[in-house]
Amino acid sequence: MAKPGIPRGTRDFSPTEVAKRQYVIGAIKHHFESFGFQPIETPSFENSDTLMGKYGEEGDRLIFKILNSGDYLSKANDELLSNKDSLRLTAQISEKALRYDLTVPFARYVVQHQNDITFPFKRYQIQPVWRADNPQKGRFREFYQCDADVVGSTSLWQEVELVQLYDKVFSTLGLEGATIKINNRKVLSGIAEVIGAKDKLIDFTVALDKLDKIGEDGVKREMEAKGIRPEAIEKVQPLFNFTGTIAEKLDKLDELLTSSEEGKKGVEELRFICENVAELGLSQSLLDLDVTLARGLNYYTGAIFEVAAPAGVALGSIGGGGRYDDLTGIFGLKNMSGVGISFGLDRIYLVLEELGLFPDTVTDGIKVLFINFGNKEALYALKTIKKLREAGIKAELYPDAAKIGKQFQHADKRAIPFAVLTGDEEIANNKFTLKNLLSGNQESVSYNDLIEQITAL
Amino acid sequence: MAKPGIPRGTRDFSPTEVAKRQYVIGAIKHHFESFGFQPIETPSFENSDTLMGKYGEEGDRLIFKILNSGDYLSKANDELLSNKDSLRLTAQISEKALRYDLTVPFARYVVQHQNDITFPFKRYQIQPVWRADNPQKGRFREFYQCDADVVGSTSLWQEVELVQLYDKVFSTLGLEGATIKINNRKVLSGIAEVIGAKDKLIDFTVALDKLDKIGEDGVKREMEAKGIRPEAIEKVQPLFNFTGTIAEKLDKLDELLTSSEEGKKGVEELRFICENVAELGLSQSLLDLDVTLARGLNYYTGAIFEVAAPAGVALGSIGGGGRYDDLTGIFGLKNMSGVGISFGLDRIYLVLEELGLFPDTVTDGIKVLFINFGNKEALYALKTIKKLREAGIKAELYPDAAKIGKQFQHADKRAIPFAVLTGDEEIANNKFTLKNLLSGNQESVSYNDLIEQITAL
Repeated sequence: MAKPGIPRGTRDFSPTEVAKRQYVIGAIKHHFESFGFQPIETPSFENSDTLMGKYGEEGDRLIFKILNSGDYLSKANDELLSNKDSLRLTAQISEKALRYDLTVPFARYVVQHQNDITFPFKRYQIQPVWRADNPQKGRFREFYQCDADVVGSTSLWQEVELVQLYDKVFSTLGLEGATIKINNRKVLSGIAEVIGAKDKLIDFTVALDKLDKIGEDGVKREMEAKGIRPEAIEKVQPLFNFTGTIAEKLDKLDELLTSSEEGKKGVEELRFICENVAELGLSQSLLDLDVTLARGLNYYTGAIFEVAAPAGVALGSIGGGGRYDDLTGIFGLKNMSGVGISFGLDRIYLVLEELGLFPDTVTDGIKVLFINFGNKEALYALKTIKKLREAGIKAELYPDAAKIGKQFQHADKRAIPFAVLTGDEEIANNKFTLKNLLSGNQESVSYNDLIEQITAL
Repeated sequence: MAKPGIPRGTRDFSPTEVAKRQYVIGAIKHHFESFGFQPIETPSFENSDTLMGKYGEEGDRLIFKILNSGDYLSKANDELLSNKDSLRLTAQISEKALRYDLTVPFARYVVQHQNDITFPFKRYQIQPVWRADNPQKGRFREFYQCDADVVGSTSLWQEVELVQLYDKVFSTLGLEGATIKINNRKVLSGIAEVIGAKDKLIDFTVALDKLDKIGEDGVKREMEAKGIRPEAIEKVQPLFNFTGTIAEKLDKLDELLTSSEEGKKGVEELRFICENVAELGLSQSLLDLDVTLARGLNYYTGAIFEVAAPAGVALGSIGGGGRYDDLTGIFGLKNMSGVGISFGLDRIYLVLEELGLFPDTVTDGIKVLFINFGNKEALYALKTIKKLREAGIKAELYPDAAKIGKQFQHADKRAIPFAVLTGDEEIANNKFTLKNLLSGNQESVSYNDLIEQITAL
């Protein structure tokens, strides 16, 4: 029989990996809750019409569909079957699909439960999502999203808080030097207005983003190749030398976008957010204004966030988010502005791993293994183990009266620091032989000494 | 637009529900780890051939299949399509399926990673599973399983530990009087041997289980109707008056099964487990021997467990498990005995709800809402909020400078116990007006008093 495997793009997580992932999730959850976000959970699969059409054509293709149960072909159209029209048959044989992100299910949740929700509603959600993407390094078909969103308020204080939230989580994880990049969709619209090419906005930002790699001339050539006229490019010349402090950048933008009402509004919003973030201070992260940031351009309407891992860690974005003025409109509830951020669990995990930032204690397991010499001794051991567990010490009995070498080997492989040996003599004297498996030292101790030594490690 | 909904048999969980579920899961996790079980996680979907055929024909039908991506019909058999042969087409258009339980994925995990695992391997797994069952009260299409299993040892000390583990979790949850029912597959086989009807074992136990409801005569009539001869039933007459202490029951069984080697082995195992559990003691739960317990008869080979909710809570089983001597054989790894238990999260939740056992603190959220009077005041508030959060107090700013009544109403709806008002005077004097929203009392306090009063609640 061939060794069994798992589907491409999915993963098993070993005890060590689960412990490390839980450590990261724990830090994120802690600050989500400390900032007043409340957890919700939604089903793994939604009705297909909840998801389909919400992520564009490519998204529709990448959504995992669930085959209807029972005789699913009975009502299928004969022509579609004989033509093998996969695309159009899908809706007839599948009515449920695995969620693709947490945002659309959240929007559905808000609309469905609107009468039970107190707005503004700050919710967080940490659950897996599924995408039928081609698996690559760091890209999986099943992965967790960790999202915090507020709906029902247009206040920019939310953006200020979300920047702080990123900083708090990274500080708890010991991650120094992440850059929280901020932009504003209205600034991008203003730029498009100024260059007179609203439809070329994405081409423009994609090209501008390559400034570091291909230089000013390269970027301009690419823009022209995409059909942006040289005179238009000339108008936004300051963007090619867009350096300095955030305040300096904002001043440049103000000047550049003086003819665009929307652009000026965007600069004003950025100024409010950045100034207040500066007033409140960040401890481990940097805030930067990045006018090439065009993430989620299709749905963000205000702030756009993206977090870059610390310089030197070639891992790209470890988080992102933004404001969308019509989150729930797709489900019929208008005028519900939302703003949110997401933490990239897998990427953050890799960054912490690369920088050696996981504390050793994260994977701490059993502290003491009781050697099994037979049933009488095992019962004595279990009585003690029961007390140790009540005292908060993780303890375990080796289940079989195997050779002692094998039992020590087991402790060694599992990195258990102590072993306890209890034979007739120990039982008679109510004592324990405690062996420190790191030093090899061994001594006869009372129950109180046992607790003390194990706890002291 | 119609209000959006979710698929039948699935659930949204509100913040309160998530908090309560996490409370139960937290207690289970705590004791799993304290007993030395290590967490693993497996993918939500497995290759279909990992799951199919492992749960019987009915199980195969209830497994959710995932439609292949792309042009899934291109390689489908024309004849199956034109015959609308749903059953046989499935394998051609679907190669992945959502996991149906945690046991088969665990067996797959053990075989796949056998070289990295230190045996005996104690693993726990708390993840959702999916079944295309007909939804009913308390039966869902997506639900969590919380499993702890040991593989790689036949030691009965594991069974002893698992009974203790149940008791520990229930104690932490404040749940008194759950009955941990135990039986042994070998005892059942022995009974079948004695009545000379090995193939009628399930009919026999199903009928016997109705003793309380339909009386001895009723049970015997049902047994006869199923084709068990009266002379055979006469041989196990003691089972119709199977009361007394566990020791007394074991003695009765010993006598009854004297002609069955396997039956006697089962009694011996039960005796070992029950005597040692009694030696170690249970704090909130009862252990009972229930010879009608035939749960999972198809795969359990030794101990069988089922936990009944406390008398008076009509909720049936809140957990179960047992020993299966060939867990991993289905994937080609022989002689790997396993034993495990499962906690029924949804049922335990309902029991705690019915008995009012969720502590009030479980749903504790934000402790203090800062009223928003405008940007200057909001910035002052956020500086304080930042410090409060660092001091471990969950605090929040109302995001908009809305009417004060609306802001208080928000605090009220979310059951936030304190509000802080900071106007010009407070800012000038570095003071805070703290309003206790339960008592209505309001006073001007320093930052230290603020912390003290909030913490004191």
